[in-house]
Amino acid sequence: MNERKKKIAVVLSGCGVFDGTEIHEAVLTLLAIEEGGAEWQCFAPDVEQMHVVDHSTGKVAEGSARNVYVESARISRGGDTLLRLAEYTPANYDALVFPGGFGAAKNLSDFATKGPEAQVHAEVSWAVRETHSSGKPIGFICITPASVGAIELGHAGVTLTIGNDPDTSSAVERRGAKHVECPVEEAVVDRENKIVSTPAYMLGPRVMDVSKGIRALIREVLELCS
Amino acid sequence: MNERKKKIAVVLSGCGVFDGTEIHEAVLTLLAIEEGGAEWQCFAPDVEQMHVVDHSTGKVAEGSARNVYVESARISRGGDTLLRLAEYTPANYDALVFPGGFGAAKNLSDFATKGPEAQVHAEVSWAVRETHSSGKPIGFICITPASVGAIELGHAGVTLTIGNDPDTSSAVERRGAKHVECPVEEAVVDRENKIVSTPAYMLGPRVMDVSKGIRALIREVLELCS
Repeated sequence: MNERKKKIAVVLSGCGVFDGTEIHEAVLTLLAIEEGGAEWQCFAPDVEQMHVVDHSTGKVAEGSARNVYVESARISRGGDTLLRLAEYTPANYDALVFPGGFGAAKNLSDFATKGPEAQVHAEVSWAVRETHSSGKPIGFICITPASVGAIELGHAGVTLTIGNDPDTSSAVERRGAKHVECPVEEAVVDRENKIVSTPAYMLGPRVMDVSKGIRALIREVLELCS
Repeated sequence: MNERKKKIAVVLSGCGVFDGTEIHEAVLTLLAIEEGGAEWQCFAPDVEQMHVVDHSTGKVAEGSARNVYVESARISRGGDTLLRLAEYTPANYDALVFPGGFGAAKNLSDFATKGPEAQVHAEVSWAVRETHSSGKPIGFICITPASVGAIELGHAGVTLTIGNDPDTSSAVERRGAKHVECPVEEAVVDRENKIVSTPAYMLGPRVMDVSKGIRALIREVLELCS
């Protein structure tokens, strides 16, 4: 029997850890999806970035502007590998995954400036709520359990991890979610709510460590699909 | 006995396949180096990119300018993970590796416009020649066997692969290098010259396929270090 490959939607937020998607996490997510026998499709909202950061100095590049959708195409490699998030519909995908990076707290929501009072971008909010209410799994990597997951699904009492940072985990709990500490190589699974999370570069420090946690997360997400 | 970890210098050319470093290849290179028990240090020349390409459309973004060093820091994650290529010296590293992407044919040399008549950026040329004459291995990924390797080391009759594209392999041979066809999962090793190459996204098509070839290349490079 030739089983249909599972198809996983991956939401990007730009290209670069300080103002967009954390690049290593995104690439390791795509790799783990393929190694798990599934396919990926990237999505990004077509909005301006909160700002542009010079990654060689860590300083904001005043006067610069970049678009989240356009920059995200650098990670997916252009063409039809990236769709606008407005085109996402849970019916066509088996799961939704959010790699981290400050972009997920600056462009997908305003968590970077507002913490637990943050609001999530309307298209991101819709994607998360509709996927969850369709009974499909969602994977949250790095800061995204706090910047997206807890904001949208905290009211449902979901269990999440952001590693062990006290401020960030308390922000998660203030939205009603339950926080569990987790080492970088592992993922936390909330089976009832089909939510998986892993700390990635909230802990790091090496690409290799992050790779193990993301592999664990994707393995669990794919299991929850079936 | 506590052996010193091998340290591999990785040369970036921006951030994004169409005007800089191919992002997947760069991340998979860093991952393979760590998984091989070694450490990495990224380098990039501090020069303007040839141009900026909108990766969502594939078109040149007229009037835009970006710096190769600044953009490369998005891949390495900032701070001291990235040094200016002018600071590279073979004595401090065990090997040199070039991930691909059009940046390696637009910013590290002018191969994208001049083909086999290309010249390599002076700092890149110095790094390749000094590393080679120090008897240390060099890894060339994707287009870089043609855009850098054959240009600088063709005169030494090195053996290289860019996969199986006839135009690119003939450009390699016109510089005196020997071209060998190679599938994406494998790497070609010139033991005498300590040169390793793999086609990566010259063939693709999946992240997973490219990952296998880059793992093979790094394994061979690390073996040649010892």
